[in-house]
Amino acid sequence: MVKFGKHPDRDMLALAVEAGLKAINDTGQPDLKVDGVYVGTAASGQFCVMENTGPMVAEQLGLLPCEAVRIENTTASGSTAIKEAFRAIAGGFLDTALVVGVEKMTHLPLEAATKVIASCMTHPSTETVHGATMPALAAMFARKYLAKFDLSTKYMSMVAVKNHENALLNPYAHLQKKISIDDAMNSPIVADPIRVMDCAPISDGAAAVVLQSGKSAAKSSKRPVKILGMAHSTDRQLFYQREGDGVSIGALKVASQKAYHDAQLTPKDIDVAELHDAFTILEIVESEDVGFFNKGEGALALEEGRTQIQGDMPINTSGGLKARGHPIGATGAAQIVELVWQLRGEAGPRQVQGARTGFACNFAGFGNSAIATILQVR
Amino acid sequence: MVKFGKHPDRDMLALAVEAGLKAINDTGQPDLKVDGVYVGTAASGQFCVMENTGPMVAEQLGLLPCEAVRIENTTASGSTAIKEAFRAIAGGFLDTALVVGVEKMTHLPLEAATKVIASCMTHPSTETVHGATMPALAAMFARKYLAKFDLSTKYMSMVAVKNHENALLNPYAHLQKKISIDDAMNSPIVADPIRVMDCAPISDGAAAVVLQSGKSAAKSSKRPVKILGMAHSTDRQLFYQREGDGVSIGALKVASQKAYHDAQLTPKDIDVAELHDAFTILEIVESEDVGFFNKGEGALALEEGRTQIQGDMPINTSGGLKARGHPIGATGAAQIVELVWQLRGEAGPRQVQGARTGFACNFAGFGNSAIATILQVR
Repeated sequence: MVKFGKHPDRDMLALAVEAGLKAINDTGQPDLKVDGVYVGTAASGQFCVMENTGPMVAEQLGLLPCEAVRIENTTASGSTAIKEAFRAIAGGFLDTALVVGVEKMTHLPLEAATKVIASCMTHPSTETVHGATMPALAAMFARKYLAKFDLSTKYMSMVAVKNHENALLNPYAHLQKKISIDDAMNSPIVADPIRVMDCAPISDGAAAVVLQSGKSAAKSSKRPVKILGMAHSTDRQLFYQREGDGVSIGALKVASQKAYHDAQLTPKDIDVAELHDAFTILEIVESEDVGFFNKGEGALALEEGRTQIQGDMPINTSGGLKARGHPIGATGAAQIVELVWQLRGEAGPRQVQGARTGFACNFAGFGNSAIATILQVR
Repeated sequence: MVKFGKHPDRDMLALAVEAGLKAINDTGQPDLKVDGVYVGTAASGQFCVMENTGPMVAEQLGLLPCEAVRIENTTASGSTAIKEAFRAIAGGFLDTALVVGVEKMTHLPLEAATKVIASCMTHPSTETVHGATMPALAAMFARKYLAKFDLSTKYMSMVAVKNHENALLNPYAHLQKKISIDDAMNSPIVADPIRVMDCAPISDGAAAVVLQSGKSAAKSSKRPVKILGMAHSTDRQLFYQREGDGVSIGALKVASQKAYHDAQLTPKDIDVAELHDAFTILEIVESEDVGFFNKGEGALALEEGRTQIQGDMPINTSGGLKARGHPIGATGAAQIVELVWQLRGEAGPRQVQGARTGFACNFAGFGNSAIATILQVR
């Protein structure tokens, strides 16, 4: 990974290349031959006037000739790129692939960046034109969820406090600042009841992973981590049109159930998880939808400390999107990097002791597209 | 396919959806279940302020729940999307996928569209900033090639004449206008020796294909067409840095050789081909690089009429990029649609008699990324 944050002096390509080089070096394979490069970026054209990022990253890393492509699935671009590479290797088309998730966003004025994000995440004719922004959608969802389970907004703030604490232990996190529950609860309103401290920041950053066939991965100096399940589900764009109870993310339920099925595991087998907390309410909701806690009990589990690093179901040890930051195309790859570090015992002061099986969910839009991944160390 | 051309009254999504619907209907499977949607588009964000095209197309076609993603590889986005879907099916991850290639470009002023194209096709710090445009690169390449083989520019014009003639027989083509060799040779200079009639137009359009496992494809009312080989190779962005003789497209040689190898065929087995004639010189060069003719003999084969519909190696029966048009993300998918029509005997007045095996090449940048595909009808 490249440290997430503001990188005013570096362009998108430089961030992607640094992350890619680190991932390659991490294999400890001096003769590594990369057959495919997959770059996940949500809106490199609009943010950086640069398309064609796959070939450019491959070239700058000296990996040519190989094949190179860019994958876009908005805020799930990073994990979707990993999925495409995973399938190419599992299907026998490639042996080794480099996946880089990257986004550079902070150089744009806030209003311009927000418009680009809206063009990624909201529907042009039924949401964007009416001014629907991501915080507005999150606010409506949070109101419904909190009302349904008779919860106060304090629980959302508790997610922020926990994730900021975790980020203090993560040198790659954007926001390295301890906050109190009062800081969070008194931060300015963005879209009632969503406050500044309920929102992931706009960040620059890149994260990368090398995927290999089992045979080649065995040559690594580090312990290989295996993808046991990786599933993708897309639901309707407009939340109100989706099936379900209105307080869940349906696509995530479908994707996670499929990932558990493929891995032949259950939520009880998961030791550490990275969830998509673009807004704090989402960490609570997702912790239920992926099966860690019963519906409506995520907030209680959070309050009891079960999702802390020392708890029985640690979530977002990296600081999550909330505090590690959210360079949108990079996020899905960064989640996998954090899990790999955790499963190899390389997470330093934020290490979950004995973690062997990890779970990540990365999603796009307001949850209309979800990718669930289950990893296990050998 | 949607007819390529100018569609001022329809947005990108409408074009993609129409093409997708036609492809679905073409299967004749009333209970078709699509597991994955792959949208290939080069720069939907910059052209149309719309990312997230995969889920939007899937939703509008009523295909949810499924998985949906957008694939970007500039002017090879359409074929790269097909490649990703092909691998997902061949690897057993999906049974049926819809691939849509789409681009909407003509609504932008020419200068703005040209800038977007440059951001897709040229390197930002080593080409774009110096004013390198695609016609400029093509001009330098054409000069070198023509000098090396002592050829006049008349051969480039002959490609334009042939492809305009073919397009007159294709109701989906953008430029349906017969031109004479004098028309082509006297058209205005864009970048010497490239003239207007050597350049593909800027177009709007979409093309789509349904990919299925063999078992499911057998249920189609139409004869299934099999992908025998599909290979992708990426080379360096800057032409002068590439290895080779300077008058070939190296990535295309690598990709086509791999595709022949996978298909266990040779160029002699190909009955009909769609090549990437973004500039007329490229059709001549590619007809050599993919093995149809010896190096330096493509122009002679063209002059002898061998690449005409009635010739022994028909090329660009659709009209090619030159006359069918070039909505960049749609082109690779349109090539495959034309081959499918040819192999099924559905190409009407431009039918190549007895065509059973087809070849397509689609590339990105000035040939830095190439996809070669070999199809065969059962």
